[in-house]
Amino acid sequence: MGQDADLRLDFDRAKRLGFPEIVYGESKSVDQLQRSVARFQARQQGVLISRCAPEKAAALPDSGLYDAVARTWMLQPEPPPPLPGRVAVVSAGTSDAPVVREALNTLRFLGVNALDIQDVGVAAIYRLLERLADLAECDVIICVAGFEGALASVVAGQCPQPVIAVPTSVGYGVAQNGAAALHAMLASCANGLMVMNIDNGVGAALAARRILRLLSPSQPEPQTD
Amino acid sequence: MGQDADLRLDFDRAKRLGFPEIVYGESKSVDQLQRSVARFQARQQGVLISRCAPEKAAALPDSGLYDAVARTWMLQPEPPPPLPGRVAVVSAGTSDAPVVREALNTLRFLGVNALDIQDVGVAAIYRLLERLADLAECDVIICVAGFEGALASVVAGQCPQPVIAVPTSVGYGVAQNGAAALHAMLASCANGLMVMNIDNGVGAALAARRILRLLSPSQPEPQTD
Amino acid sequence: MGQDADLRLDFDRAKRLGFPEIVYGESKSVDQLQRSVARFQARQQGVLISRCAPEKAAALPDSGLYDAVARTWMLQPEPPPPLPGRVAVVSAGTSDAPVVREALNTLRFLGVNALDIQDVGVAAIYRLLERLADLAECDVIICVAGFEGALASVVAGQCPQPVIAVPTSVGYGVAQNGAAALHAMLASCANGLMVMNIDNGVGAALAARRILRLLSPSQPEPQTD
Amino acid sequence: MGQDADLRLDFDRAKRLGFPEIVYGESKSVDQLQRSVARFQARQQGVLISRCAPEKAAALPDSGLYDAVARTWMLQPEPPPPLPGRVAVVSAGTSDAPVVREALNTLRFLGVNALDIQDVGVAAIYRLLERLADLAECDVIICVAGFEGALASVVAGQCPQPVIAVPTSVGYGVAQNGAAALHAMLASCANGLMVMNIDNGVGAALAARRILRLLSPSQPEPQTD
Amino acid sequence: MGQDADLRLDFDRAKRLGFPEIVYGESKSVDQLQRSVARFQARQQGVLISRCAPEKAAALPDSGLYDAVARTWMLQPEPPPPLPGRVAVVSAGTSDAPVVREALNTLRFLGVNALDIQDVGVAAIYRLLERLADLAECDVIICVAGFEGALASVVAGQCPQPVIAVPTSVGYGVAQNGAAALHAMLASCANGLMVMNIDNGVGAALAARRILRLLSPSQPEPQTD
Amino acid sequence: MGQDADLRLDFDRAKRLGFPEIVYGESKSVDQLQRSVARFQARQQGVLISRCAPEKAAALPDSGLYDAVARTWMLQPEPPPPLPGRVAVVSAGTSDAPVVREALNTLRFLGVNALDIQDVGVAAIYRLLERLADLAECDVIICVAGFEGALASVVAGQCPQPVIAVPTSVGYGVAQNGAAALHAMLASCANGLMVMNIDNGVGAALAARRILRLLSPSQPEPQTD
Amino acid sequence: MGQDADLRLDFDRAKRLGFPEIVYGESKSVDQLQRSVARFQARQQGVLISRCAPEKAAALPDSGLYDAVARTWMLQPEPPPPLPGRVAVVSAGTSDAPVVREALNTLRFLGVNALDIQDVGVAAIYRLLERLADLAECDVIICVAGFEGALASVVAGQCPQPVIAVPTSVGYGVAQNGAAALHAMLASCANGLMVMNIDNGVGAALAARRILRLLSPSQPEPQTD
Amino acid sequence: MGQDADLRLDFDRAKRLGFPEIVYGESKSVDQLQRSVARFQARQQGVLISRCAPEKAAALPDSGLYDAVARTWMLQPEPPPPLPGRVAVVSAGTSDAPVVREALNTLRFLGVNALDIQDVGVAAIYRLLERLADLAECDVIICVAGFEGALASVVAGQCPQPVIAVPTSVGYGVAQNGAAALHAMLASCANGLMVMNIDNGVGAALAARRILRLLSPSQPEPQTD
Repeated sequence: MGQDADLRLDFDRAKRLGFPEIVYGESKSVDQLQRSVARFQARQQGVLISRCAPEKAAALPDSGLYDAVARTWMLQPEPPPPLPGRVAVVSAGTSDAPVVREALNTLRFLGVNALDIQDVGVAAIYRLLERLADLAECDVIICVAGFEGALASVVAGQCPQPVIAVPTSVGYGVAQNGAAALHAMLASCANGLMVMNIDNGVGAALAARRILRLLSPSQPEPQTD
Repeated sequence: MGQDADLRLDFDRAKRLGFPEIVYGESKSVDQLQRSVARFQARQQGVLISRCAPEKAAALPDSGLYDAVARTWMLQPEPPPPLPGRVAVVSAGTSDAPVVREALNTLRFLGVNALDIQDVGVAAIYRLLERLADLAECDVIICVAGFEGALASVVAGQCPQPVIAVPTSVGYGVAQNGAAALHAMLASCANGLMVMNIDNGVGAALAARRILRLLSPSQPEPQTD
Repeated sequence: MGQDADLRLDFDRAKRLGFPEIVYGESKSVDQLQRSVARFQARQQGVLISRCAPEKAAALPDSGLYDAVARTWMLQPEPPPPLPGRVAVVSAGTSDAPVVREALNTLRFLGVNALDIQDVGVAAIYRLLERLADLAECDVIICVAGFEGALASVVAGQCPQPVIAVPTSVGYGVAQNGAAALHAMLASCANGLMVMNIDNGVGAALAARRILRLLSPSQPEPQTD
Repeated sequence: MGQDADLRLDFDRAKRLGFPEIVYGESKSVDQLQRSVARFQARQQGVLISRCAPEKAAALPDSGLYDAVARTWMLQPEPPPPLPGRVAVVSAGTSDAPVVREALNTLRFLGVNALDIQDVGVAAIYRLLERLADLAECDVIICVAGFEGALASVVAGQCPQPVIAVPTSVGYGVAQNGAAALHAMLASCANGLMVMNIDNGVGAALAARRILRLLSPSQPEPQTD
Repeated sequence: MGQDADLRLDFDRAKRLGFPEIVYGESKSVDQLQRSVARFQARQQGVLISRCAPEKAAALPDSGLYDAVARTWMLQPEPPPPLPGRVAVVSAGTSDAPVVREALNTLRFLGVNALDIQDVGVAAIYRLLERLADLAECDVIICVAGFEGALASVVAGQCPQPVIAVPTSVGYGVAQNGAAALHAMLASCANGLMVMNIDNGVGAALAARRILRLLSPSQPEPQTD
Repeated sequence: MGQDADLRLDFDRAKRLGFPEIVYGESKSVDQLQRSVARFQARQQGVLISRCAPEKAAALPDSGLYDAVARTWMLQPEPPPPLPGRVAVVSAGTSDAPVVREALNTLRFLGVNALDIQDVGVAAIYRLLERLADLAECDVIICVAGFEGALASVVAGQCPQPVIAVPTSVGYGVAQNGAAALHAMLASCANGLMVMNIDNGVGAALAARRILRLLSPSQPEPQTD
Repeated sequence: MGQDADLRLDFDRAKRLGFPEIVYGESKSVDQLQRSVARFQARQQGVLISRCAPEKAAALPDSGLYDAVARTWMLQPEPPPPLPGRVAVVSAGTSDAPVVREALNTLRFLGVNALDIQDVGVAAIYRLLERLADLAECDVIICVAGFEGALASVVAGQCPQPVIAVPTSVGYGVAQNGAAALHAMLASCANGLMVMNIDNGVGAALAARRILRLLSPSQPEPQTD
Repeated sequence: MGQDADLRLDFDRAKRLGFPEIVYGESKSVDQLQRSVARFQARQQGVLISRCAPEKAAALPDSGLYDAVARTWMLQPEPPPPLPGRVAVVSAGTSDAPVVREALNTLRFLGVNALDIQDVGVAAIYRLLERLADLAECDVIICVAGFEGALASVVAGQCPQPVIAVPTSVGYGVAQNGAAALHAMLASCANGLMVMNIDNGVGAALAARRILRLLSPSQPEPQTD
């Protein structure tokens, strides 16, 4: 497969880490994405492409599923075996939807059960407080927020689970590009809040997946290729 | 008064704005502060010095009152006439005390009635929710917080009054120097939150004083010198 | 209304805060905006959408009013009851018009009487000084400026009212994105200047609205839904 | 207990979150720390103070244990019940010791079993590769590194567990204050790496504690006070 | 040639430095580029244009070679004499291809023998370790990486050659624009790592060319014009 | 003079530029400063040292003049010949005194006539307007201000002369280190304002000196050594 | 002229400062520009619009002169009276052309004689040294440079005239947006270098115009309207 | 050697890279430094400690050599075998001495012949031009400069050798901490300039050492321990 010298897919990853490589589509050409998909298909493996522009998705096999909000493209020969545990994805506002959907799609791709709670930002704190009972039934909480990102502090102050905060590039002025939310989450007075890069929904899902490993440590054991 | 050419006190300010000049002590010499105090005394006016280091305060008249936490020095021949209205000063943690005390002392200097509510940060949101009834009896709310400054968003989301947010230089890492809290407050999703410079307790008190003017607009009319 | 699970409008806000939620249009889809408007209409409430792109506005009901400079879309079944008090909106240059108009439209939507004074920046200070008498008749001053934002310092130094400064993303080089004006306003030597996020005309209007509450504290009392 | 109005300890936290409040000592006075300790002692609870300067520690009860490198002060009436699970604390260099020790002491305070692997930075990658077998026996990995923080990427690329990265304020020039390491960890190409604020050893330990909850979810149930 | 007063090509450079001027195409007009090429052609010299947009390349002589990934345009009357020595160009991911190709094309233009090793980033460290033997046969290593740029630290920790690190503007959030990778490379704990500006593939190749001069110091002696 | 190989004083500067080298004392040792002074003395030339700490000044010849506020040390065998023209040095507040004095001392060292107008910041604009007539008699204006630096904009808007703005590192929060004032001055809407580095009083004086050359262009002609 | 309430042209400026207002076209609408031009024409005055996009220029009177490189539009009923003195405009590279041309056009508009020296950056220092004699015949030097902006330091080190440095937003990576050049110019070790905002060619020309006032101080005296 | 578990010296480095580990002394305790030195001595190897504070040096063996300017401590049982090649260390000003000396001491420790050329910054360009002949006899040039760092651009524009630029934290205002010089060097228009972290004299020396390997590639072959 000499023509793929520029494309060194890390098929070993599932063996090492228990979950496969997710393809970062932002800076790959259509040709590179097509060859990547073909190689996953040849191995009968599912493939998830993140940050996949619509025009790139249009050039990929019709059997794949494209989510235009999340900008993810996914192809799974068969649904993944469901994993024990449940992950809540909580967001501050409807503007956070692309990152929320990227996280949810990645969780689904990994076979993780998810609970979706949107638009519960702290400008109306009761919207969050009403959902605390639902959150209590989850093992991990992913908290997605832009602007000042205060939701993550309140959630981590109220819930005992691991909380993974994802700042989003939503807002304007000092909030532009998500730096205000990122810094607020890192500086949170709520102890033990863990933070991802801005807009990194895939990363949050993978972090949650790593954590769920504690519920079934034997599962992600090395599989033969 | 030729020897005071370097010291142009704005005695006209009370006539223009309804409140006197506050002396910024950080970069003034002991000699300059002593001469400033003398000139206010000669006019029978009270004087408030902010950011006054202990060794400078020690060189000022014994009749003044020094607050080592707030680093303010105050001398008032007689208590100011009480103004209508009430200002709440709410803070996230005990680390914010210097800024809280600077604001409270300035309010007292201006004759403003204040309510002090400390250590109600969002890591334990119930501490704030318990105090909403008390807040409802105030006309203006000053909200002081460091780290991620999320308290201001929650307060402004729950209370209809004007809310003045003061970020503090409390915290470490990305929170160091107060920039994370400042940006979070400016980016707040809670509508209508107003923000001061980092650690600016004096400014918040003066802003509140300006707002209280609406309760008695005739009061701050020009006074003859 | 199960299809609106992604859209949790805060209808409770008017009861809590005395003014309704303003819809932030930047990152909402046409479909989401249409459903939002429908839900406000179903409740016979007015609705204001900020940062509404022209192509989105074109897909909203014809009965709404679109301001292409301010990028606001507004629909009010009937004019709001006029509130006591008056707010001046002062700007440094014609380039600040979008933010000025966003603030003015929001004030109008809230029933607040406004005075509009444009293009009085400090490069020709007499233009401002000529208008001081007009400013004296207002209860709150909103000061909008880009570049170095010096206008806010001069206004706050001359006027006793609450002054709300709004930096704008006008200018180039170090002024680009409004950070120079923002920092200048926060650092202002004029005591008690309050600052909003860059370009936040809606926020300034809501802050003014909160302040005007002092003129009629009983008015914004909770209304039944 | 009226004299403690400035000190609202969150004794409810253990019930909500399963672990007690850690006292942030940086900006508290000796008097405040003494009163805090007394109140924990009155409740027969252990207390951990972070960022406790030596001169403050000297004024606290002799029965406490002070670690001058970590700057932590700890007092535990009796050792906490051991929790299931094990946490590795891996560091890049000896300069990271204060943060490593802060994390280890916090883990010990919480009853968590820890494995300490120091000085395995990527400038000599074999030092890390030699320890992969040891890491494989841990449930969570805390990775502490300054300078460019590359260790975290390599660890997360090789290990399937949850990896919590803590940048340290070690280095000079662009590395000063830890921002280079922080950004590198957030930008890591290794999927699912979670990041804490610079030097936040306490936070990393609490995050690990939250994750270990998955091994014994019933344990951190609300306890009566 | 009076019409070229705006275009002062540094034909003296080959005499001073041993390698010719590379034309920076980003901000030159088509007309300026055409005149530059004509002047190099009139001197029988090869010419390399970097950051040359496709539409500009289309207006240049057909005899030139355009690389759309690297955005370089090259015209060489005859291949340059091969220089002693060999340069490895190592990259972390396929997204770094434009910078890798810019460096490789510049090396080829200068007559330098190059080895191309792509997609060996540290998220799967074995991909790099497998290639150490190949690297051992090179005299200089150029290491190209975006995101957190950790590859450069690992390479410089394992290889004795001069290592030139080139951060790329690949990634999002804190990685956007390449600043995270740049700072990580400058802060590297691996001793003696040298760093170029973000995306500066041409510069890395020229730096390598300067270093190879040590293998044949007499070669780059001044040539007559 | 072999022992001075580390000290290459630019005695040629007066010939080239019309004014002598000013010695930057910040990072020079006492020994280096002593040798510098000796060499100027040997040539019968005056010498000015800026940023000279008190303990360094104490080790220099008694015949020199030390200004502890400006931190300048000056030794002039005889007063310089007075130059035509006059420079105003205007400052916003008493906190700017060190920079004002550094500029004034440098002007005096160069033989330039100066007018000193302090403490006329825009928080009380009338203080400046009262002095416009005095300013009208100067050829160049140096404007020194910290905090938001708005004074420079107002001066340049009212006065036709060249205006040189010097931001000072006065203030706290976003003003700390002078960056807010620097950016405001660079972004000034007042056309033609020229800006120096933060706290650069020496530079402003030398810039003014260069400008005054237009009043007597023949004067700064090369002088024999 | 009620329809021009949004457009307060500062016709008084020529009287105050000796030169007219330059219209900043970036954020003005075509309608506003047309009305501005009409009002200048009605007064028989020349008008210069900077940062005027081609499509805006196309809608202005044909009698105006548009420079697409500089993006300036100029209309002068008759050439301005020539002023005494001469200004050199020196640039580092051809990429700086837009700023160079903006400065040259502004000088021409003001009646200032200019010398244009392009593409003499320090990567080939002899190109500058060859032109020192030409520079010696000018009264003021404007130095335009992007990337690292080193040209300004060398010029100011060699020439006794006032030197006005203009950083340009030319370059990539850390040079992007001109911040690297701006900081280098402000930090210059060459004494007395004055700096403008990034890309501010108009400002540099007006600063030079202010300086030339010293050659003919009586000329810019107030003129009757 | 169980008591040294916290101190994993990389004795393998000389075998891998051809030069030994340099000990970074900044954040190591006296005890750690003493044990490090003892272990090097036990192996009969020389040891160099950088950033070694005077009080730490005082606690190390008397046989070592301390340089208080460079803050290096060195102990070599016997002088290293001299390497072929020569490295020039060029600096802009006397303030750069600590970094220059750190680089020179490291070169000496490695057995590299060095030429020291100080205080030839571009404010007086002839000082550099006079030394070009000396530079021509060196194989590598290390260029050390603070403030705006322009020296590196001029050197790289005139000399064909590899040029390693080291920005220093010399200067004030925007130059403070060395960021202005760092960015200017990275943005240099002089092709092929390589850059180190701020103040990284050790790194520059090691980079030069790596480059000199091309003169004797067989020398740094793996040595048995």
